[in-house]
Amino acid sequence: MSDASRKPWAGRFTEPTDKLVERFTASVHFDQRLWQVDVRGSIAHAKTLHAASLLSDEELEQILSGLARIEAEIKEGKFEWKAELEDVHMNIETRLIELIGDAGGKLHTGRSRNDQVATDVRLWLRDEIDAILALARQLQSAMLDLADINTTTVMPGYTHLQMAQPITFGHHIMAWFEMLDRDVARLVDARKRMNVSPLGAAALAGSSFNLDRDIARKELGFSSISANSLDAVSDRDFVIEFLSCASTMSVHFSRWCEEIILWMSQSLRMISLPDEVCTGSSIMPQKKNPDVAELIRGKSARITGHLTTVLILMKGQPLAYNRDNQEDKVPLFDSVDTLKDMIAVLAVVIGAIEPDHARMAELANDGYGTATDLADWLVKEGIPFRRAHDIVGQLVRIAEIDNIPLSRISLDKAQAVEPKINADVLQSLDVERSVALRNLPGGTAPDRVRMAIATARRGLRDT
Amino acid sequence: MSDASRKPWAGRFTEPTDKLVERFTASVHFDQRLWQVDVRGSIAHAKTLHAASLLSDEELEQILSGLARIEAEIKEGKFEWKAELEDVHMNIETRLIELIGDAGGKLHTGRSRNDQVATDVRLWLRDEIDAILALARQLQSAMLDLADINTTTVMPGYTHLQMAQPITFGHHIMAWFEMLDRDVARLVDARKRMNVSPLGAAALAGSSFNLDRDIARKELGFSSISANSLDAVSDRDFVIEFLSCASTMSVHFSRWCEEIILWMSQSLRMISLPDEVCTGSSIMPQKKNPDVAELIRGKSARITGHLTTVLILMKGQPLAYNRDNQEDKVPLFDSVDTLKDMIAVLAVVIGAIEPDHARMAELANDGYGTATDLADWLVKEGIPFRRAHDIVGQLVRIAEIDNIPLSRISLDKAQAVEPKINADVLQSLDVERSVALRNLPGGTAPDRVRMAIATARRGLRDT
Amino acid sequence: MSDASRKPWAGRFTEPTDKLVERFTASVHFDQRLWQVDVRGSIAHAKTLHAASLLSDEELEQILSGLARIEAEIKEGKFEWKAELEDVHMNIETRLIELIGDAGGKLHTGRSRNDQVATDVRLWLRDEIDAILALARQLQSAMLDLADINTTTVMPGYTHLQMAQPITFGHHIMAWFEMLDRDVARLVDARKRMNVSPLGAAALAGSSFNLDRDIARKELGFSSISANSLDAVSDRDFVIEFLSCASTMSVHFSRWCEEIILWMSQSLRMISLPDEVCTGSSIMPQKKNPDVAELIRGKSARITGHLTTVLILMKGQPLAYNRDNQEDKVPLFDSVDTLKDMIAVLAVVIGAIEPDHARMAELANDGYGTATDLADWLVKEGIPFRRAHDIVGQLVRIAEIDNIPLSRISLDKAQAVEPKINADVLQSLDVERSVALRNLPGGTAPDRVRMAIATARRGLRDT
Amino acid sequence: MSDASRKPWAGRFTEPTDKLVERFTASVHFDQRLWQVDVRGSIAHAKTLHAASLLSDEELEQILSGLARIEAEIKEGKFEWKAELEDVHMNIETRLIELIGDAGGKLHTGRSRNDQVATDVRLWLRDEIDAILALARQLQSAMLDLADINTTTVMPGYTHLQMAQPITFGHHIMAWFEMLDRDVARLVDARKRMNVSPLGAAALAGSSFNLDRDIARKELGFSSISANSLDAVSDRDFVIEFLSCASTMSVHFSRWCEEIILWMSQSLRMISLPDEVCTGSSIMPQKKNPDVAELIRGKSARITGHLTTVLILMKGQPLAYNRDNQEDKVPLFDSVDTLKDMIAVLAVVIGAIEPDHARMAELANDGYGTATDLADWLVKEGIPFRRAHDIVGQLVRIAEIDNIPLSRISLDKAQAVEPKINADVLQSLDVERSVALRNLPGGTAPDRVRMAIATARRGLRDT
Repeated sequence: MSDASRKPWAGRFTEPTDKLVERFTASVHFDQRLWQVDVRGSIAHAKTLHAASLLSDEELEQILSGLARIEAEIKEGKFEWKAELEDVHMNIETRLIELIGDAGGKLHTGRSRNDQVATDVRLWLRDEIDAILALARQLQSAMLDLADINTTTVMPGYTHLQMAQPITFGHHIMAWFEMLDRDVARLVDARKRMNVSPLGAAALAGSSFNLDRDIARKELGFSSISANSLDAVSDRDFVIEFLSCASTMSVHFSRWCEEIILWMSQSLRMISLPDEVCTGSSIMPQKKNPDVAELIRGKSARITGHLTTVLILMKGQPLAYNRDNQEDKVPLFDSVDTLKDMIAVLAVVIGAIEPDHARMAELANDGYGTATDLADWLVKEGIPFRRAHDIVGQLVRIAEIDNIPLSRISLDKAQAVEPKINADVLQSLDVERSVALRNLPGGTAPDRVRMAIATARRGLRDT
Repeated sequence: MSDASRKPWAGRFTEPTDKLVERFTASVHFDQRLWQVDVRGSIAHAKTLHAASLLSDEELEQILSGLARIEAEIKEGKFEWKAELEDVHMNIETRLIELIGDAGGKLHTGRSRNDQVATDVRLWLRDEIDAILALARQLQSAMLDLADINTTTVMPGYTHLQMAQPITFGHHIMAWFEMLDRDVARLVDARKRMNVSPLGAAALAGSSFNLDRDIARKELGFSSISANSLDAVSDRDFVIEFLSCASTMSVHFSRWCEEIILWMSQSLRMISLPDEVCTGSSIMPQKKNPDVAELIRGKSARITGHLTTVLILMKGQPLAYNRDNQEDKVPLFDSVDTLKDMIAVLAVVIGAIEPDHARMAELANDGYGTATDLADWLVKEGIPFRRAHDIVGQLVRIAEIDNIPLSRISLDKAQAVEPKINADVLQSLDVERSVALRNLPGGTAPDRVRMAIATARRGLRDT
Repeated sequence: MSDASRKPWAGRFTEPTDKLVERFTASVHFDQRLWQVDVRGSIAHAKTLHAASLLSDEELEQILSGLARIEAEIKEGKFEWKAELEDVHMNIETRLIELIGDAGGKLHTGRSRNDQVATDVRLWLRDEIDAILALARQLQSAMLDLADINTTTVMPGYTHLQMAQPITFGHHIMAWFEMLDRDVARLVDARKRMNVSPLGAAALAGSSFNLDRDIARKELGFSSISANSLDAVSDRDFVIEFLSCASTMSVHFSRWCEEIILWMSQSLRMISLPDEVCTGSSIMPQKKNPDVAELIRGKSARITGHLTTVLILMKGQPLAYNRDNQEDKVPLFDSVDTLKDMIAVLAVVIGAIEPDHARMAELANDGYGTATDLADWLVKEGIPFRRAHDIVGQLVRIAEIDNIPLSRISLDKAQAVEPKINADVLQSLDVERSVALRNLPGGTAPDRVRMAIATARRGLRDT
Repeated sequence: MSDASRKPWAGRFTEPTDKLVERFTASVHFDQRLWQVDVRGSIAHAKTLHAASLLSDEELEQILSGLARIEAEIKEGKFEWKAELEDVHMNIETRLIELIGDAGGKLHTGRSRNDQVATDVRLWLRDEIDAILALARQLQSAMLDLADINTTTVMPGYTHLQMAQPITFGHHIMAWFEMLDRDVARLVDARKRMNVSPLGAAALAGSSFNLDRDIARKELGFSSISANSLDAVSDRDFVIEFLSCASTMSVHFSRWCEEIILWMSQSLRMISLPDEVCTGSSIMPQKKNPDVAELIRGKSARITGHLTTVLILMKGQPLAYNRDNQEDKVPLFDSVDTLKDMIAVLAVVIGAIEPDHARMAELANDGYGTATDLADWLVKEGIPFRRAHDIVGQLVRIAEIDNIPLSRISLDKAQAVEPKINADVLQSLDVERSVALRNLPGGTAPDRVRMAIATARRGLRDT
């Protein structure tokens, strides 16, 4: 074994590490993706050491140029990652020592992998949250575009998957927008809370060197430093909080995709999707399946599974750092990758939805969706709502027997149930009128939806 | 069946509801605990209807006094809850109609159970979060008191459950404080986000009456109204977000209790707990078990299970309201109850912890916890840390063979490994000095812990 | 405090237990439902003690009659459960001592609550599994009845919620039957594995009395005794295995209900359900919602949540018994109750499904579901399937443009794509013929479904 | 696009597939590991087609040799996997057509990817279960070896992590053995239940060709064929059942590792582990951490997370196949890999455990672990157990004040509590005698442990 690839604690051990154990414990095959933030963290730490006179000007210079060379090697694919060096941190440090000698051996002064990895993951996740937020804004923007041209498109509004009341398609899309808006707000809060520098906590008790923790904080763009070193190295709340946000977000995506799948099914046919977001069947020549929507629905299960994993993982551990923590990375990385893909693909899907206005209107007219309007009219005529509800219930039953809409019940039959009913009100029970009536803030009336879109556009612009 | 106990949709149906189905679908046995917020919501809605001239002055008066009478009946245990009326909402409305007649039948104008239950749960949970926050502050206060008298108490700091470095007990307790502080911050954010009024969304499309949604918003103390009616009735993000916060909090509690159990075990004996928070054995007369801590550890599993439940529950649903949503309540209610109990009991436990200072010091001296200090000293003598680490590793191995502390290695043997080592440094390797050295912000040095406590006290006072 | 209500370890403790802690640690409010099995276990243990000469004939008699009296008291609602006695075990033992004196004090000889509760839960769950199996058989029987009268009812078969191929409704119901059949088989395996007597394991090391563990085993109907005392008191695998079975079962139920909800939606209307398994809306007079199916779908989330809880619960514990274990009961009890209700209600729903044959056929004819049949015909004409698939894909595209079924494509256009196609084959592309063709074991052809039903009936009869 | 890389449904579509969507929907980067079972399944299907005269002798020969060549290409790393061909199935089929032309195009006759992938995953998992069972037997064998040489090694037995009663180390290891034995039994049951051939189910309704499903069943070693085609393509119970077994197994592993970590901690030091299964610290030179045990503990969280994922995944789907199902593979594959590694590494760890007999005995003598023995002795003297328990409780309190073992209480003081106590019994309260007393089946007495080991060895040999 070359000197450079010796384990950092090799002085302590006399026996070689078994290969199986090495493979089992190594993390470099997945944590190497942290290399960029690891280098950034090391630069910040080197500057802190320099300010504390633990590195000379020259040594700092050597470290910075050594790290720059390592960056180049990694980018060019020339860096040799070694499982026997365990993780991204020791791979980089070992190479640095190889390149610049003693100065490299000084970099770990006042630092432990415990605070180093906490710093790396925070930096990495902060960047990824920013990327997710940017993607989410694009998706929201696509939603606004779709809503904008559908403020007057009437469609059936379902509760219990049964026709409830007519709504506008723009209004429905804006419901999705609102859900995503909360997701964004949650991520912004999570980002604030995680933007704290653990550097200086060292192994668990804090460094014994007189380090100015604010140097690294500023260098790395953190808004504060951790207030307790023990907590700093053992805390993975920020991973859990991100995964909670991601789970809720992906539950939303699953719900939308459930609707997209329904809307596209033969029996509804309210929307179509172009071929590029669908796939076919290996056996059935006629098939055009909403696979993309189904995969998003499926992948959302994965993110909740990952959240569960990390909650279980952390629950079992006393303070401070335990090796269990290494297991936070695979679920976190996979969640981030999956979530970003989901958002990007959803933006394509949203942009590709082609609503069938005629079919939507047809379905909106099915199922007595304006029955509430008739009850509401009776209320305006002075009948208590609970009684009005009862009256209309009877009328619906009569209409169902003849399989006709409420508007076509004979006036005689209607007035036998409730004398106040007149021909005008029955004829006015159409779906356009129905949506227009719901003209209070948050309602489905075209005017209100337009106002909601305008407000949303302003909100997007201002962030 | 009396008229008053008819289902609200009885006009629609011709067949009586089977008893099994009635029991299966009824929620009143668990949602009746929402009665107080349901009444508050109804008062606010009645005022909205009145302002829209849908209720006369007299009718509003009748409703308010009817609801007041119902409140009294419930408080006195005289209210008869009926499963055949399904839920808290219909039980109260039906009784109101029984008491005041037609005016009662007008209360549901422009409202659906869909927006009603969303309002109720938000109000209820907002109050519960406030109660949880108050309890959390009490618990934090108990922590500060315990930390305060233990700023100089040296104990072993563990990583991997192996002696790592000496720390102070006050520092350790402050790590717990920090964890709880983040929990509080998360709950405060969740509370802000959930404080939105759904009233006016009606079934899903918004009410067709010209209601001023701001009246109920103000009356109920909400900070805004929901921007989309479809989203308003189907959204349960606030339940998920609360359960996420609660899960993380309870994972923290589990970790602390894991430590309390360890600390109290025979082999560590670092703390003792008084009999009132312990229990005995039915068979073993000598036993004094940390049952309370074990139960907290166990109950935390439950809250994560509940979070999983609600995520699964919501994932499968298209918009808007589906009956599945009813299943959010049992996990939510149980999580709130469990969490409040956990915090209250933890405050008792924290207040009852009796640290054994001598035993803590003894264990802190075990296991070469000052080895890093020696390495750090070598660094100050100009040796690169990575080499210093190696040198001390060799010295530890030598000391282990003779089973002696580092300070008692013979100078000859020590200098054979590294000539710079002198008698002074070896003798200075004691645990008090070690903790005092970690005197940077967030470090375990008594001074720093005192500063952290002072800052924390100010923070508590200001909230 | 009366002598009888003293804690079993009162000799050990000098301080009274705080009320909060008492409420927090007590389990009697939920574990009292174990009373019947607790008494059965105690009878078996008493007989074991008697055989080992640790109880005289008279003492045994006293214990048996004392327990009989307690049974009567509980059944009559006269037994006073006390939280300060913690759990069902101490409540019953304390009352026994109150009733019969010293003989009662001898019952706990060679026993601990650790093996006692393990025995109780196994006995209780074994009975409940038997009840669940009986219910499942009833449900399967209802399925066979429904399938039986629908072996020739053609309906659309969906993949990706898109029309795939026509199937028979009986075939679809038999798919559900198969799923439930595996659930039953899993429960039968779980029952076998759990049917092991822990009695004699005492606290964790085994009793120091010379007890014949086979006496209690036989008395309680266990098939074997636990092979390791430590494992016997800490093992909750049987709870996890049951919850795993229950989760899978409830996932099946959720899938079926998803389909029921879809089939009953306005756009499909393939089935209807009578009013007694539906509910209405508080605001929309026309609504008839499949609430029962939605609740089953929702409740299935709960059982998976409970499984997660118990897995988390057990994961964190070293051997042997820890108080965390107490937390297994609430999720177990609720899962059993929920599962039994779900099955009973599903049997009602299955029995109430009214398929609309005409509508099913109409939808089966929509969406080119016989396209595969045409491809298969081409294969029989010697064209490789992959090419046949391609040919039919082109024909579907042509038919879609004119919005006509494949059978109505002009022969000219069809032969332009593939000359082998003739008028006969195009006209033969109907859904009855399509299902009849799938006449291999497991296929959807009416004959095959009838055979599957017959086999299933024999299977049900033989269990 | 070359003809060979055309999508199987390319005839249906006119637009090229977007790259993002392609990457998002492709599974070949993870499902290519199924290549071997996919080829086996195709061979079996080809033989079925040949028997049905759908392939000539020559075509069968071409397919078999074509598949053999593909096997060779994959093994040699020369096979080019293409994301645009989506999955392992289409990659292999496309290459086959490229190699042998029309005969290759006939292979998919009477088959769909729906039944194909179900077959592949069952075959793959069956093999993996066999591998896991073999590993588990090795691990059990290592446990028996460790138990064998420790049948008389006395150690403390803990409940609530408090000294309960002395046990033997061999007995403790045999508790682990029992847990694993149940895991093995569960896997054997799961294997039986999953060993069913879906081939012939085709897309969902069964093939329209007259295929003898028994040919493929025999060829692939399945014990039966699926009874319902719809169920066959949508069922993933076998994945869930495996993951349930794997979760329970990994929960066991986590519990053992929790104990190993405790036993190895400085304060207990009951065992040591050699360097090759430990790792050091990057900052603390003295550290030797049980990282392997901690990682096993951590990784077990992952498997429960994966179980949750697949339960959620399946819950949301109506029949029959939906693309969501693709998401079952990543959690399944990772669980299998992780589980196999865990078992292999645990076998190394178990083989490497070095118990410190003296330290174990020392700790067993701490904490009044023989108090139950004294109570049991009093019972044998005729005192009811409940009273005996009380008496010994008082004696323990007296002994604790002077911090002496029970055996050193002065006879005067002891007899003041209970006159029957004599000097002999007090002196006989030692730990060796205590374990020897627990000499009933399943008890911790050395003789019993030896018998349990012998039985276990026979069991292992017979499987």
